[in-house]
Amino acid sequence: MPDSSDSDSDVQVSDAIANVSDNLGVEYVISFRFDGADKQKVEAQFEKLIAALDGVGLRTEVRDGANGNVLVFVRVRSEQKLVGEVYRSRVKDWLHGVRSAAPDKETQRSLDKEPLTEAERLRIVWQLITLPDSEGGAGITPKQGQWDLVESVFPLHDHEFNKAWMKRWSTTWTIGPEELGKLRDRFGEKVAFYFAFLQSYLSFLIIAAAIGAGAFFLLPAYSLTFAITNCLWSVIFVEYWKRQEVDLAVRWGVRNVSSLQNRRAQFKHHKEIEDPITGEVVKFFPAWHRLARQALQIPFALGASCLLSALYACVFAIEIFLTEVYNGPFKAVLVFLPTVLLSVFVPVLTSVLTGIATKLTEFENYENQSGYEAAMTQKTFVFNFICSYVPLFLTAFVYVPFGNLIVPHLDVFNLTTPEITTESFLDDKPIDSFQINPDRLKKQVIYFTVTAQIVNLALETIVPFAKRKIFRKVKKYQNARNGVAKKASHDPPAEAAFLKRIRRESELEHYDVHTDLREMVMQFGYLTLFSPVWPLASVSFLINNWIELRSDAAKICVEMKRPVPHRADTIGPWLNNLGFLAWMGSISSAALIYLFSDSTNGTPHSLTLYGVLASIIFSEHIYFATAYAVRLAMSKLESPGLQQERRERFLVRRRFLQESLGVDEESEVKNEKVAFGKRAEGTSTEEEMFWDRQQGPRECVDAGKEIIRGVLEKKDQ
Amino acid sequence: MPDSSDSDSDVQVSDAIANVSDNLGVEYVISFRFDGADKQKVEAQFEKLIAALDGVGLRTEVRDGANGNVLVFVRVRSEQKLVGEVYRSRVKDWLHGVRSAAPDKETQRSLDKEPLTEAERLRIVWQLITLPDSEGGAGITPKQGQWDLVESVFPLHDHEFNKAWMKRWSTTWTIGPEELGKLRDRFGEKVAFYFAFLQSYLSFLIIAAAIGAGAFFLLPAYSLTFAITNCLWSVIFVEYWKRQEVDLAVRWGVRNVSSLQNRRAQFKHHKEIEDPITGEVVKFFPAWHRLARQALQIPFALGASCLLSALYACVFAIEIFLTEVYNGPFKAVLVFLPTVLLSVFVPVLTSVLTGIATKLTEFENYENQSGYEAAMTQKTFVFNFICSYVPLFLTAFVYVPFGNLIVPHLDVFNLTTPEITTESFLDDKPIDSFQINPDRLKKQVIYFTVTAQIVNLALETIVPFAKRKIFRKVKKYQNARNGVAKKASHDPPAEAAFLKRIRRESELEHYDVHTDLREMVMQFGYLTLFSPVWPLASVSFLINNWIELRSDAAKICVEMKRPVPHRADTIGPWLNNLGFLAWMGSISSAALIYLFSDSTNGTPHSLTLYGVLASIIFSEHIYFATAYAVRLAMSKLESPGLQQERRERFLVRRRFLQESLGVDEESEVKNEKVAFGKRAEGTSTEEEMFWDRQQGPRECVDAGKEIIRGVLEKKDQ
Repeated sequence: MPDSSDSDSDVQVSDAIANVSDNLGVEYVISFRFDGADKQKVEAQFEKLIAALDGVGLRTEVRDGANGNVLVFVRVRSEQKLVGEVYRSRVKDWLHGVRSAAPDKETQRSLDKEPLTEAERLRIVWQLITLPDSEGGAGITPKQGQWDLVESVFPLHDHEFNKAWMKRWSTTWTIGPEELGKLRDRFGEKVAFYFAFLQSYLSFLIIAAAIGAGAFFLLPAYSLTFAITNCLWSVIFVEYWKRQEVDLAVRWGVRNVSSLQNRRAQFKHHKEIEDPITGEVVKFFPAWHRLARQALQIPFALGASCLLSALYACVFAIEIFLTEVYNGPFKAVLVFLPTVLLSVFVPVLTSVLTGIATKLTEFENYENQSGYEAAMTQKTFVFNFICSYVPLFLTAFVYVPFGNLIVPHLDVFNLTTPEITTESFLDDKPIDSFQINPDRLKKQVIYFTVTAQIVNLALETIVPFAKRKIFRKVKKYQNARNGVAKKASHDPPAEAAFLKRIRRESELEHYDVHTDLREMVMQFGYLTLFSPVWPLASVSFLINNWIELRSDAAKICVEMKRPVPHRADTIGPWLNNLGFLAWMGSISSAALIYLFSDSTNGTPHSLTLYGVLASIIFSEHIYFATAYAVRLAMSKLESPGLQQERRERFLVRRRFLQESLGVDEESEVKNEKVAFGKRAEGTSTEEEMFWDRQQGPRECVDAGKEIIRGVLEKKDQ
Repeated sequence: MPDSSDSDSDVQVSDAIANVSDNLGVEYVISFRFDGADKQKVEAQFEKLIAALDGVGLRTEVRDGANGNVLVFVRVRSEQKLVGEVYRSRVKDWLHGVRSAAPDKETQRSLDKEPLTEAERLRIVWQLITLPDSEGGAGITPKQGQWDLVESVFPLHDHEFNKAWMKRWSTTWTIGPEELGKLRDRFGEKVAFYFAFLQSYLSFLIIAAAIGAGAFFLLPAYSLTFAITNCLWSVIFVEYWKRQEVDLAVRWGVRNVSSLQNRRAQFKHHKEIEDPITGEVVKFFPAWHRLARQALQIPFALGASCLLSALYACVFAIEIFLTEVYNGPFKAVLVFLPTVLLSVFVPVLTSVLTGIATKLTEFENYENQSGYEAAMTQKTFVFNFICSYVPLFLTAFVYVPFGNLIVPHLDVFNLTTPEITTESFLDDKPIDSFQINPDRLKKQVIYFTVTAQIVNLALETIVPFAKRKIFRKVKKYQNARNGVAKKASHDPPAEAAFLKRIRRESELEHYDVHTDLREMVMQFGYLTLFSPVWPLASVSFLINNWIELRSDAAKICVEMKRPVPHRADTIGPWLNNLGFLAWMGSISSAALIYLFSDSTNGTPHSLTLYGVLASIIFSEHIYFATAYAVRLAMSKLESPGLQQERRERFLVRRRFLQESLGVDEESEVKNEKVAFGKRAEGTSTEEEMFWDRQQGPRECVDAGKEIIRGVLEKKDQ
């Protein structure tokens, strides 16, 4: 019944259109910013843009962007073109092992079985726009090379979906797999993976918060029991997520998708070789070269760490000096100096280092975007790590144990000397008698785990909103002055509202999922590294993240351009960073417990260096053993996703086998005759004689019994 | 041309027969030992045996085994039966993902493409004999349950091949992949993997020996440079072998074969469930249960370690006391006491512990043999580790640093007190002035790495030979006395020589590849843990292993029954043990270097505990970083085997795709019509109006240019 299936699928395709009908069928908007450029160049590039889009079967409409840019609206010219592209993409997935089952041989039937999601649709169109010529795309790369005037290419928000989404999420406690599935169908796997991670983390935080609250109220400060439980929790979480990630990737049909990525436009090949697997000619850059270039990361990471740590150490020293030693003039003002220094120097240093990191990553010449992003993430993780944790490390492992030794030497400029001399008749050794501030560490931890989180949440939600408002006002004013008046009056009245919306969306920022992932991973780091100091941290995070999960969703809906639904099969390099932080946590916790556990007021008991070292070694090896055991235990329990994948693969093969079964039996019968006829020739007479001595099993049994009787009866005699 | 292909394959099958023609076509021999059992039981079991073999299509011949046993000779009844079984086995491999390509649909053509190796043939027949009823075998499990009189089931040596093999290997320097392939075709992958490992290890030892010799002659004793190089070498070797193993498994077509194993007869299921993947009903034992049972390993390993270590520590104390403190009567005799104590107690203790380990492993209830073997290996590795390395650890980390403190307290029975009093006028404090023996550690290392290796080699080659000779003599004498005369006279003259050979082979021992693997892994441990003490260890091992590789081959040919060619895709648990030893090496080397490096005569310089701990922490983390880097670097370089596998998979899929291409295009054309006809209905008028404003790309360009000019020209004015 091919007719009915065809019409069904058309209904389904039309449904997909109906879903975005609010967007008038627009799939992507290309913002072409000509403001300030040479007219001829602008016109040439614009003409080329339309031609390129037309060339790959995309239909375009042009409208005024009102702020010195042109908006090009894009959709596929025919549904059939799209269906063909979808099928081709699915076949490619299957060829490269992303799918276990081949799509149905008949294109249309394949679409019926696995309906086209909006994310897949948008991804396919995105590929048409951005893939290079050679791979069947228009090759448009925003802001790069010959497309420097193309400001951005973005899909349009589906406001009805967004509204419903916001409403659902703000009224439910947990985001289940079904919700994640919906999210994935709209925004693609990369974004869905972030929310899946956040939800898993949130669920685990409930346990952590219960443990933390219990420890805070029932156990002594710096409790060993709590530290161990906390480490165990972090290990289990990391291992759980590793499995969960694979499971989700399989369920979403994106496993191994990272191996099947489109080439970055900036990739420079050394030579063209034949792909050893597919036999196609591909651009090739030797792995050894990249490896050698990657080795540069090590000195870079070390250098960056030293620089940033040194900055923090200096500021820290100044801070301690000013708050706890210095008593001279302007103290009320000077105490703000460290904050000012950090706010000035850290951004400067980080941006310089980020610049170098970007150069390095470019130099490493990754073939695809996810490789590039992973390498960049790993480099910036170093800065993030230092900026987030070094202030606390300094307090815990330098200020507290060695404060009494170091602080007296901080006064390098002898600023306090007059005070000492004047006060020396009150107290003989005012500096030597300096007492470390026992609450400092706890206060700092509370600052980082509560105050900073709240500030951050506010910054993420309120500031961009305010920024956009102000930016729009300024722009309006500028445009008015420059004569680029808003051409709302020229808009066809029927489209006015729509175009206004699109102009707003074109001004929004791009959503980068890595920023949100980084925030969560760094937060996880506070838990693993410092929660023995203040066990309630997990409670704070639990509350924060419940809101974060929803506010991030709102952020995507309201403050960001709709993200292009890229695919991903992992949260990428952040997974390694999670593991690293869990490991560091085992070391840090051990050291903290050793340093502070006997003290009731935060001052450490008498220190022995080998004590610290021994407790670190001990704790770290316990960590390894535990991580190994947890991994082993989890590996024994097959995840439902993997099971499903194996089942699919098995069924595909069995079907193939059953199809070929008829042929097989036929040939077997034929062969039997031949084989029997020929067999005797091959055997030697000696062999024949050996095997013919007993004919059939009956004679064998008799011969055997004879031997047995011969021996046993002789014995009996 | 089905005719020619059929006859070809028959020739090939006949060739396979010709290869074992020396064995008169015998595939397996079953030794049925009835001596000492009840006659009725013997006859019943014998009859059942022949019937079971006959039932699965095996042909039997019975001969007298001469020493109270019956030899049952087994071969498949028809070649066609075998071919069918081979095809079924290959299809099963493919269904479970061991093969990437399905075997050719026509059975016979499939055999032509991939000729049947002797190992595969023997494996298939082995499965026919040993698989349970439900899986289509005769269910014969030697020495177990209802088959307690079946002493063994073994294939026959191919003496011509063995002779040629010995000759080739004794005249070549290295065993290349081709030789390993030949070995695999005869003895199966499990044995071939051992030799592949040994050859890889041997090749790496050349580098280690060069480094070691260089260090011994050029660098100072306990050189840091050497220790680092040595650790690096071991890390690279382990990572190299991990990859090599995967590569070999892919080349030999056995990747993932461990997931496709036949059930152990001793496996006890909890219930029968439907397999979630294949849908078949399978016997099921929950993974959680096994995991809980496996947890018992931890207290067992700890207990066993403590017991054995305590034994060694006691004997060590006695030894030190006797050799270096005691000076009383019978010293010449008493110095042998430690050796005697060890020779008595270690075997007793180990056998008791092995008994417990076996019980534990049985209790863990593994489904297949390799799981069982792996679990057993991991348990015995604990004993091996302690017996091999604890004596050296005691010398290095107890005797040398603390000797001066501990030794004076060793004299718990005050045996030396009289001597002290009598000698006290010569030396005031004879015990307190005790000096540790600086050469002790080096001497011990040399003993373990040279003497013990030579002794071991001799034990492996000469002792079994002598044992067999003596055993045969005794047997002959016993038989003569018991009246079970050798019935050589009853043998048909044509078969006499053959039967004599088989009787001999039936007396040989089973070859257990794990014993040989253990030997090599423990040897690797000496290198990683102690080679800074005496860098020439690697030279000794290089020489030893060159011989070992050949003597092990000879051992299999001469002193062992021919091994059943089982499949394997790894050296199994030994891989983890290698990694563990490399890790331990990083710790041990650091400690050794720290303790001994400044001393010229082997006595350590002044110790600080935190120094040792710090150097251990430092070294261990360097190890982690290096292992990570090496693993990363190796993962970037695709192994040829894996590449081949991916290529095969890709080609299979592409072929499938090309076959279905015709269907696809047809349906596409048909759909195009339908799609275009229906499309307009789905779109709203608003949408139509939006998209119809500009007709075609030309109008788009014009509209865009108008907007651009409007803005840019206004600006110019």
